[in-house]
Amino acid sequence: MKVSKGLKVATIGGGSSYTPELIEGFIKRFDELPIKELWLVDIEAGKEKLEIVGTLARRMVKKAGVPMEIHLTLDRRQALKNADFVTTQMRVGLLDARVKDERIPLELGLIGQETNGAGGLFKGLRTIPVLLEIAEEMQELCPDAWLINFTNPAGMVTEALLRYSSHKKVIGVCNVPFNMHMSISKMMGVDRESVHIDFAGLNHMVFGIHVYIDDREVTDEVLEMLANPEIQLTMKNIAPLPWNRRFLKSLGVVPCPYHRYYYKTKTILEEELAAFKSGQTRAEIVKTLEEGLFDLYKDETLAVKPPQLEQRGGAYYSDAACNVISSIYNDKKDIQVLNVQNKGALAEVDFDSAVEVSCIVTKNGPIPLTMGKLPVPILGLIQQIKSFERIGAEAAVTGSYDKALLALTINPLIPSDDLAEEVLQKLLKAHEEYLPQFFHEKALADIQG
Amino acid sequence: MKVSKGLKVATIGGGSSYTPELIEGFIKRFDELPIKELWLVDIEAGKEKLEIVGTLARRMVKKAGVPMEIHLTLDRRQALKNADFVTTQMRVGLLDARVKDERIPLELGLIGQETNGAGGLFKGLRTIPVLLEIAEEMQELCPDAWLINFTNPAGMVTEALLRYSSHKKVIGVCNVPFNMHMSISKMMGVDRESVHIDFAGLNHMVFGIHVYIDDREVTDEVLEMLANPEIQLTMKNIAPLPWNRRFLKSLGVVPCPYHRYYYKTKTILEEELAAFKSGQTRAEIVKTLEEGLFDLYKDETLAVKPPQLEQRGGAYYSDAACNVISSIYNDKKDIQVLNVQNKGALAEVDFDSAVEVSCIVTKNGPIPLTMGKLPVPILGLIQQIKSFERIGAEAAVTGSYDKALLALTINPLIPSDDLAEEVLQKLLKAHEEYLPQFFHEKALADIQG
Amino acid sequence: MKVSKGLKVATIGGGSSYTPELIEGFIKRFDELPIKELWLVDIEAGKEKLEIVGTLARRMVKKAGVPMEIHLTLDRRQALKNADFVTTQMRVGLLDARVKDERIPLELGLIGQETNGAGGLFKGLRTIPVLLEIAEEMQELCPDAWLINFTNPAGMVTEALLRYSSHKKVIGVCNVPFNMHMSISKMMGVDRESVHIDFAGLNHMVFGIHVYIDDREVTDEVLEMLANPEIQLTMKNIAPLPWNRRFLKSLGVVPCPYHRYYYKTKTILEEELAAFKSGQTRAEIVKTLEEGLFDLYKDETLAVKPPQLEQRGGAYYSDAACNVISSIYNDKKDIQVLNVQNKGALAEVDFDSAVEVSCIVTKNGPIPLTMGKLPVPILGLIQQIKSFERIGAEAAVTGSYDKALLALTINPLIPSDDLAEEVLQKLLKAHEEYLPQFFHEKALADIQG
Amino acid sequence: MKVSKGLKVATIGGGSSYTPELIEGFIKRFDELPIKELWLVDIEAGKEKLEIVGTLARRMVKKAGVPMEIHLTLDRRQALKNADFVTTQMRVGLLDARVKDERIPLELGLIGQETNGAGGLFKGLRTIPVLLEIAEEMQELCPDAWLINFTNPAGMVTEALLRYSSHKKVIGVCNVPFNMHMSISKMMGVDRESVHIDFAGLNHMVFGIHVYIDDREVTDEVLEMLANPEIQLTMKNIAPLPWNRRFLKSLGVVPCPYHRYYYKTKTILEEELAAFKSGQTRAEIVKTLEEGLFDLYKDETLAVKPPQLEQRGGAYYSDAACNVISSIYNDKKDIQVLNVQNKGALAEVDFDSAVEVSCIVTKNGPIPLTMGKLPVPILGLIQQIKSFERIGAEAAVTGSYDKALLALTINPLIPSDDLAEEVLQKLLKAHEEYLPQFFHEKALADIQG
Repeated sequence: MKVSKGLKVATIGGGSSYTPELIEGFIKRFDELPIKELWLVDIEAGKEKLEIVGTLARRMVKKAGVPMEIHLTLDRRQALKNADFVTTQMRVGLLDARVKDERIPLELGLIGQETNGAGGLFKGLRTIPVLLEIAEEMQELCPDAWLINFTNPAGMVTEALLRYSSHKKVIGVCNVPFNMHMSISKMMGVDRESVHIDFAGLNHMVFGIHVYIDDREVTDEVLEMLANPEIQLTMKNIAPLPWNRRFLKSLGVVPCPYHRYYYKTKTILEEELAAFKSGQTRAEIVKTLEEGLFDLYKDETLAVKPPQLEQRGGAYYSDAACNVISSIYNDKKDIQVLNVQNKGALAEVDFDSAVEVSCIVTKNGPIPLTMGKLPVPILGLIQQIKSFERIGAEAAVTGSYDKALLALTINPLIPSDDLAEEVLQKLLKAHEEYLPQFFHEKALADIQG
Repeated sequence: MKVSKGLKVATIGGGSSYTPELIEGFIKRFDELPIKELWLVDIEAGKEKLEIVGTLARRMVKKAGVPMEIHLTLDRRQALKNADFVTTQMRVGLLDARVKDERIPLELGLIGQETNGAGGLFKGLRTIPVLLEIAEEMQELCPDAWLINFTNPAGMVTEALLRYSSHKKVIGVCNVPFNMHMSISKMMGVDRESVHIDFAGLNHMVFGIHVYIDDREVTDEVLEMLANPEIQLTMKNIAPLPWNRRFLKSLGVVPCPYHRYYYKTKTILEEELAAFKSGQTRAEIVKTLEEGLFDLYKDETLAVKPPQLEQRGGAYYSDAACNVISSIYNDKKDIQVLNVQNKGALAEVDFDSAVEVSCIVTKNGPIPLTMGKLPVPILGLIQQIKSFERIGAEAAVTGSYDKALLALTINPLIPSDDLAEEVLQKLLKAHEEYLPQFFHEKALADIQG
Repeated sequence: MKVSKGLKVATIGGGSSYTPELIEGFIKRFDELPIKELWLVDIEAGKEKLEIVGTLARRMVKKAGVPMEIHLTLDRRQALKNADFVTTQMRVGLLDARVKDERIPLELGLIGQETNGAGGLFKGLRTIPVLLEIAEEMQELCPDAWLINFTNPAGMVTEALLRYSSHKKVIGVCNVPFNMHMSISKMMGVDRESVHIDFAGLNHMVFGIHVYIDDREVTDEVLEMLANPEIQLTMKNIAPLPWNRRFLKSLGVVPCPYHRYYYKTKTILEEELAAFKSGQTRAEIVKTLEEGLFDLYKDETLAVKPPQLEQRGGAYYSDAACNVISSIYNDKKDIQVLNVQNKGALAEVDFDSAVEVSCIVTKNGPIPLTMGKLPVPILGLIQQIKSFERIGAEAAVTGSYDKALLALTINPLIPSDDLAEEVLQKLLKAHEEYLPQFFHEKALADIQG
Repeated sequence: MKVSKGLKVATIGGGSSYTPELIEGFIKRFDELPIKELWLVDIEAGKEKLEIVGTLARRMVKKAGVPMEIHLTLDRRQALKNADFVTTQMRVGLLDARVKDERIPLELGLIGQETNGAGGLFKGLRTIPVLLEIAEEMQELCPDAWLINFTNPAGMVTEALLRYSSHKKVIGVCNVPFNMHMSISKMMGVDRESVHIDFAGLNHMVFGIHVYIDDREVTDEVLEMLANPEIQLTMKNIAPLPWNRRFLKSLGVVPCPYHRYYYKTKTILEEELAAFKSGQTRAEIVKTLEEGLFDLYKDETLAVKPPQLEQRGGAYYSDAACNVISSIYNDKKDIQVLNVQNKGALAEVDFDSAVEVSCIVTKNGPIPLTMGKLPVPILGLIQQIKSFERIGAEAAVTGSYDKALLALTINPLIPSDDLAEEVLQKLLKAHEEYLPQFFHEKALADIQG
C-alpha cells in the first residue's frame, strides 16, 4: 500500500460501545499501523453516544501518547473521502431492534437470536441496504479503500456486498474463529503460535476442519477434550451447553459455538424461552450492560478501555478487527479467517458466494486458502445456510415479501411455512421504520399478495 | 437386450401385498414384455404370504391367458440364476418393525416416519445389508441383470448400492414422481402425454423444476393451483396439509408430498402425535389393511387385483415398476424419473451420489438428463439430505454406532444431539434382531463407547 | 408444439446447392412434418441461384404431390415473420471466400481448411455477425421459433449465439456424428437401430465415447476394425488417411474424421500442400462441382435430387437437418447429437459453453444427456479447441484484431505467434469486404496497433 | 516441526554439478535452518562425482565455519533413515541420456527438449519409477519427512508421486517462477518484495496471472515491456526468442520462457535443428560445461561455489530449493510457487492433479492459494498438457507401450500419430537400459502388439 498523506481510517457506527476496544487495538499497534486520522461516524440518533465514546477515545489516545487524530462527525461522506480503510459496526434500530429480533420469534415458540433464524434474517434486512449505500459511496469517495465489516449477520451482509455492490474490496470479519483458536490453544496448553487450524464454512457456521500443534494433527484429541463438559468451548453470548460426546467425536471437525443452534436446537430453545419469560434475553442483558458502559465512558478520569467491556461479549473483537487492517497495510501474509468470495476454497460451495475461510492477508487483500472438499457430514448444513443467506440477501435488496418468506421457511430453525409467515408479518410490522424497501407502494401491494 | 431363452424376472419379497399390482402390470404389458418366468422369492418367515400371493398370481395369469410361469421359492440363488431383471420389494422385520420406526421416535416427540428422520435411517440400516448381499449374488449368478429396487428408503439404499456394491446395474424406483406427474396432469385438465416435468432432487425429496404443457412452461400456474387448499397434491400416506400459498409461489418449483416433513415439520409432528396417541400411526393402519388384503387374496374366486389394494397407498407403483423394465427391454428411450448415479445431471451435487432425476431409459439402462444448476432455495436442503443419506449408508455398511448417531444428528428432523442418541439407543435395542452389524463384539464395544 | 395456421419454415441461404437435399428430406417426412410454407431466402448476390434452386424445389414438391408452398424471397424479415423453424445454411463470401480460407494459410505453410485453423476462424468471423443479426430478428419476428444452424464452423457459431444473442432457442447441427453412426453400423454389419453411441465433444471435434450393439459395449471391437486401413471411417471432404493402429486402440474412444487435423497434422498438411500446388484444394473442387450442379438444377425435366449432389460431401445432411425439426415438432424424444449449451453434460467442460453431445429431442428442444467425465486423453484437446472457439467468437463479435490474433496463436494448428499474425493480416485483407467489424475507424486504429 | 536430534537432510543425486549451489544455499541460511547432517547420496556410477562434489562441499562448509556434517554414501536407505527432508535431483542415464532425448526427436524433425515433447516424456519414463521407489522407502524409513523434488519433468513426476505413491508429503520445485519474479522485479526497477505475482499453471507451463507492485496491478505494463524485444524475459537454456507484441498483449497474462515451445514452435524447432546439425544441442553444451565444472570442483583451493556454475542455467535454483525447506521448518507462511495437489486452487483443473501454483508454506507443508478460474486463452493449453502428463505418468508406472504412444500423440509438439510411434520406438531402443518396465516379457509382447 502506498499511503501518501498518512493513514486515514473511517469507522461507521463510531458511537458503538465496542469502539474503545477498537481504539485500544489501534493504540497497541500504532508502531506498525500509524493511523493519522481516525474518523468516528454516526447518525443523528447516535450523536450523544458518539460524543461520549469519541471523547473517551481522545483521552485514550492522549494518555497513550500516540499522534492519532480522532475526528467525530455525522457527515459520512466527509469521513469516507480518501479514506484508506473503512470499518463498519452498526446496529440499525439500535438494541431495541435486537430486543424485537429476539422476543418476537420467541413469542411464537421460535428461536430468537440476532444472527440466526428469523432474528438473523431481520438484522440482515435492516442492515444490508445501509451497507450497500456505504459501499457505493466508497466507490465514489475512496475507491481504493477496503471495507472491513463487523456488522452481523456478517455472512449474509458479505454475500450481499459481493453480489450487489460495485465496490468489490469488501471483507467480513468475525471474532468467532479468533476465539476458537485462542480457546483451543489454551485448552491444549500450548501457545497460540503453535496451533494451526484450517477453518472453513460460513459466518457463525464455521468449522475447524483440521487442528495442528506444530506439524502434528490433533483434531481428534481436541474433540475428545471439547467433549468433556467441563472444558467445553463457549462464548459469552451463547449458553454453554455441552456437546454430546459421541456425536462430537463422530463429527470429526470442531464446530463453532453457534452450531449449538443447529445441533442442539431443542435445548437452546428451552433456555431461550426461560430467558424470554424472565425478561432476560441476551438483548435485554446487553442493553443493561451497555447503559452501564456508557456511564463508565462518561467518566472523565477514564482513559483506557474499562475491563467491564469484556463482559459485553466481544472478546478479541479488537484483535480480529485491527489485524486484518494491519496485515493489508504491512503485507504481512499471515493467515486470518475472513468472510470473502469463495473462489474455489471450498470446492463444493458456489464459486461466487461469501464463505468464512482461512485466508492469507496480503497488501492486495485476502486470498482464500484451498480447503478442498468439505467433510460429508457438514457439507449439507453449510449449503443449507448458504441458500438461506443468498435468498435473505436477495430479500434485503429487493424488499420482496415472498423472498423474505422463502428465506424464513428454508431456514432450519423455523419449522413450518405458516409459522414463517406469522413471524414475518410480526417482524415486518415491528421493524417497519427500518425496512423502507418493504413498505413503498409496490412492496405493500406485494405484501397484501 | 438379447434374451435367448425367454425373459426371466425374479421378485425378491414376492410375498408382499403389493405383488398383485406388479402381476397386473406384467399382464397388461405382456405383448411388449413377454416374461416367460416370474420367480417370486421370499424368506422362511414370509412363506405363508408367498403361498397366498403366489396362488393369486397364478389365478390372475391364468384368467388373463398369458403364458407366464409363476415360480414360488425360498431359494433366492435359484431365482437369481440367469435372471434378466431382479426386483426387490421387502420389509426387513415386516410391519412390526415399521410400527417401531414410527412409534419409538414419537415417544420422544420426534417425527416417526418410515423414510424420513430416525425411522427412515433405521429402515435403511436394516435393509441395506440385505440389498448388498443380493447385489453380490447377482454379480455372481446374473451379472448382466438389472436390479430394480423399490424398497425404501430408496435414496439411501441406492446410494449404498452405488458406493459399496460390485454390481453396478442398479436402479432405484419410486412412485412419487409418477404420482406427481399424474396429479398435475389431472389438475391442469390435460392428458399425461402433454405434460413434461423436469424432475430433480433425491428420493422423497424430489422437485418438479419446470412443468410444461406442450412447449409452454406452466410452472407458475401449477404452483398457483397447488396453493389452493382444495386441490392440493397429496398422497394416501401423507396428511394432506395445505402449503402456505405465498411460500409455494416463492419457492418456484413443485415440492413433492414428502417435503411437508421439512417445510411443515411442526404441523406434521402434531398430527403424528395425535395418531400416536390413538394407536393409528400409518404403520398400524397399514397393518390392519394388509391383514384384510391377505384375507381377500385367499379367496379362490379372486383372479384380478382387488380394488381395495389401492387404499394401501402404492398408486401407480406397478406402472413405475414395470415401465422401467419394459423400457430397458424395448430400448424405449422414454423419460422416467429414477434413482441413479448423478454424473453431473445436478451440476452442484456430488458426481458419484445417487439422485432422483429425469432419465432417458435405453437398452443400456437409464441416462440422466442434465438438469443444470439447482434453484438456490432448494439446493441447501437437497445437499443436507444427501449428507444424511451418505452417512446413513456408511453406518449401515459399517455397523458404526457413531456414524448412526452422526446421521441422526445432522438430520433436520432431529433437533438435538442428545435426543439423537436417545432415539438411537431405543431403536437399536428394538431392532437388534435385524441389525447384526451393530451387535457383534467389536460393534458392541463401540456402542459402550 | 402448437402450430395454429400450418407449419412455416424459413431457410436462410435458400439458394445453396444443398437445398434440394433439404427439400427431399421435407418431402420424405411430409406425413409427420406437414410443412405448409417453406420460405427460401437469399441475398441479392444469390438471387440467380435462389431462382434456379427454388424452381427445382417447386418441381420436386409438385412431382411428389405434397401440398408444401415454396416461397422465394430476398426479404428476410418477411420470411421470418411468424416462422416456426428457421434453418440457416450460408456461405458469407461464397465459395470464393472459401478458396481464400484454404489457399492463403497454405501459402504460408499452414493447414488451410474451412472449419479448422486459420480458415475456420475466418469463416467464423464472417458468419457470426450475420447469424447474430438473424437471431435478433427472430427474437422480434418469431420469438418462439427454433434457429437450426448448419453453417460452419458450427461450434464457434453456436458458442457465439449462446453467449451473445438474446434469442436462446438455438441449435447447431452437423452431419458428422450421423455419418459416424451410419458408417460404424455398416462396418459392424448391423442395422442403425441396434447401435447406440454416446457422443461427446465439440463440433468437428466429437468423439464416440462408448459404442454399443444392443446392450453390449463394442467400443474396442470398433476401434480394432477402424484401425484396419482398408475399412477406415472417412468422409468425402477429408483425405482418407489411416489412423495409427496402436494409437487408436490406446485412445479408447472413436475419433471423428476431423481429428486427423490434430492427430495427423503433418500428413494432412503435406496432402493439402500438394493439392494447393495443383490448384485442387477442396474449395476449388467444390466450386467446379457446384457449377455442374447448378447446370443440372436448371434442367426443367429434373424433379428429384440429382445423384451427383452426393459427391458434394453432405451425406445425411438432410437427415440431420430434418430430424431435429421433426423431433421437436412431434416430441419424439429420440437421441440426436447436437450443438447446445453444455449444462453439465460434459462434467469438466464450462457449464455455459456450446458442446456437441448426445441429446434427447423433446417438444421443448434438446436436453443434453450426462456423459460424465471425459477420458483423460481427450479432455485436453477438447478444452484447447473450446478456448479457441470462445476467443474466436469474441473476436467475431468485437472486431478485435488482438483477439483474432490470440485465437490464431492458441490454435494448435498454427505453430507460431508471428506466423499467426502474418496469416491474420493476409486473411483480413483478403476478406475485408465481409468483415466490416474489423474495418471501421476504431478497429483500424487498433489494427495499426 | 519438532526436530529432536538436529536436522537431517538427505540429497539424492548428491553428485550433481548443482550441489555446490545447494550447499551455498544451506550455508547462507544456516542461522535459520541449522542442518546438522547433510547426506549426499548417489549411485555406483556417480561415485566419482559424488567424491569430487562432496569434498568441495566439505571445504565450503569448513570455510564458512558452519557445523554442518557432510556425509557421502551410496547407501540410500542409510541416508533416508530418520531424515527430516529429502531432496531429489537426479538424471537417470546421466547427460548421455539427455543427449538422446534431444537428438533423436530432432532426427525426425521433432522438437528435442528435456522437459517438453518426446524428450520430456522419456525423461519422465526413466525418472518416475526411481522417484516412486524413493518415496516408498521414505514411507518406511522417514514417514514424516518431506520429499522435495527438483528432478524434471517436475510436473509429470509430481503427478505420478501424488497418484501412485503411498508417501503423500511430496513437493515439486522449479526455479522458473522464482526467475520470472526476479526478472520482472528487475525489469520494473523495483525490489523483489514489492512485487506480487499470482502464479498458476503447470510446471514449465506456468503463467503469471496478475502482477502487482505494492497493491497496484501492473500486468499490462509488464506485458508491454516484455513485448519489447530488447528486454524480453529469458532463461539460459531457452533461445531468447522475442514474443509477438500484439499476441503477448492480447494473452493478458505473463507466459513462462518454456511457453515458447508452444507459441513459437516453428521458430524454436528451426533453431534446434541448426544446433542439432552443429552438434550443439543444449545437452551437448551442458556436457562440456559440466566437464569444466567438475575440473574446477577438483581444485582443492576452491571452497566456494564457482561463478562458472551460473552459466549452467540453474539461476536461483538454490534459493527455490532452500526456501521451501526453511519455510516448512520455520513455519514462515511465505508465498512460494510449488508443484502440489490442486485441491481447487485452479477451479477448472482436476482436483487431484499436480499443478504449479502460488502456495503459502507452513509447518504443515504448502497450502495452495485460490487462483480462481483460469483465463480462457490459457485454460485449453494447460488442460492439454495436464492430459499429457497424466497419461505420461501412467505410462511410466505401467510400462505400457500404448500409453506411451498415446501420451506422445496427444502432445501438441508431436504432429502425427505415425511420427509419434516412430520416435517412440527409437527412444525406447536408445534408453532400454533405463526403462526396465517396458522390457520385461509381458511388456515386450505388448510392444510387438
